[in-house]
Amino acid sequence: MELLMDKKADENYTIVIGCGRLGANLANTLSDEGGNVLIIDKNKDAFRKLSPSFGGLSVAGDATDLEVLQDAQIHKASVVVAVTNSDNANIMVAQIARELYQIKRVIARLYDPERECVYREFGIDTICPAILSAKEIDKILSETGLSEEGSQEEKK
Amino acid sequence: MELLMDKKADENYTIVIGCGRLGANLANTLSDEGGNVLIIDKNKDAFRKLSPSFGGLSVAGDATDLEVLQDAQIHKASVVVAVTNSDNANIMVAQIARELYQIKRVIARLYDPERECVYREFGIDTICPAILSAKEIDKILSETGLSEEGSQEEKK
Repeated sequence: MELLMDKKADENYTIVIGCGRLGANLANTLSDEGGNVLIIDKNKDAFRKLSPSFGGLSVAGDATDLEVLQDAQIHKASVVVAVTNSDNANIMVAQIARELYQIKRVIARLYDPERECVYREFGIDTICPAILSAKEIDKILSETGLSEEGSQEEKK
Repeated sequence: MELLMDKKADENYTIVIGCGRLGANLANTLSDEGGNVLIIDKNKDAFRKLSPSFGGLSVAGDATDLEVLQDAQIHKASVVVAVTNSDNANIMVAQIARELYQIKRVIARLYDPERECVYREFGIDTICPAILSAKEIDKILSETGLSEEGSQEEKK
C-alpha cells in the first residue's frame, strides 16, 4: 500500500492514531483548519465518527506495526498524536515517532496519570483525561464559590 | 445504615459518586482542602484509590438507588459530582440531585459529547473528557506554533 501524499505532505502534516471520540474530533478540527491529516485506526468502522467534511486520509491498520507507520509516511509528519484507548499502544507509538523518526511534536493520551511524568522527559507531551477533568471541576467549583448558586457569569 | 454526619454536614458538603481515577482524585483534593466529602462507589475495592490522608467517608452502594443517596444525607450536600464510568448513571444521579433534592451545584461527567449541551439547561454542569483533551491538544499545538497557519488567536 503506497499512499499518494507526496504532493500534500509538508511541515503541517499531522498523524492521528486512534479514531475514538478524541481522535475523530481532533482530526475533524485539524482538517477543518486546513491541516493535512491522516488518521489510523485498527477498526475501519471507527472512521464513521469523522465528519462528512473531513478532508484527510484514513487508514485501517495497527499503528504499533512499523509498516503501517511507514506507509503513512510518518517521517514527513510534524505532529503525531496517539489517542487510542490503550495507554500501552499510545506509549509505544509515541516512542517510535519520537525516537525512531524524530518527530518534532508527539502527544500521547494516557489514562493512567502515574505514567504521565515519565514521558515528558522523552519529549513526549502527555494528556491525562482524569487530570484535565479534575482541573475543570475545580474550576467550575471555584468560579461559583462553593455554595453559591449564582451560576456561570460569562463575560459579556 | 445511618451515617453520623450531622455534626459535620454543612454548606461545604460534597458527595462524589464513582471512585475511579477522577472521583478518587477529586475526593482526595477536596478532603485535603478541608472539605467535607463523602464518596460512593458500587465496588468497595475502588476506595483503595483514595489516599491515606483522605479524611472523608466512603460508602459502598449504588448511587442510582435513592436509599443510598438518602443515607448519604444528600439533602445536606451543596455539591454533587457524578463521575462513574456510566454516562447513564451519571445523568440519573445528577437529575435526582438537581430535581429531587435541589442541590445547588451538580456536575456530571459525560463521555458522550453529544449529550453535553442538553444538561446545561437543567442546571447540571457537564464535563466531557474528550472535549477537554481536544482543547488541551489544541493548546499544546498552538503553544509551540507548530501546525500554525493562523491558529487560535487568543485575546491579549
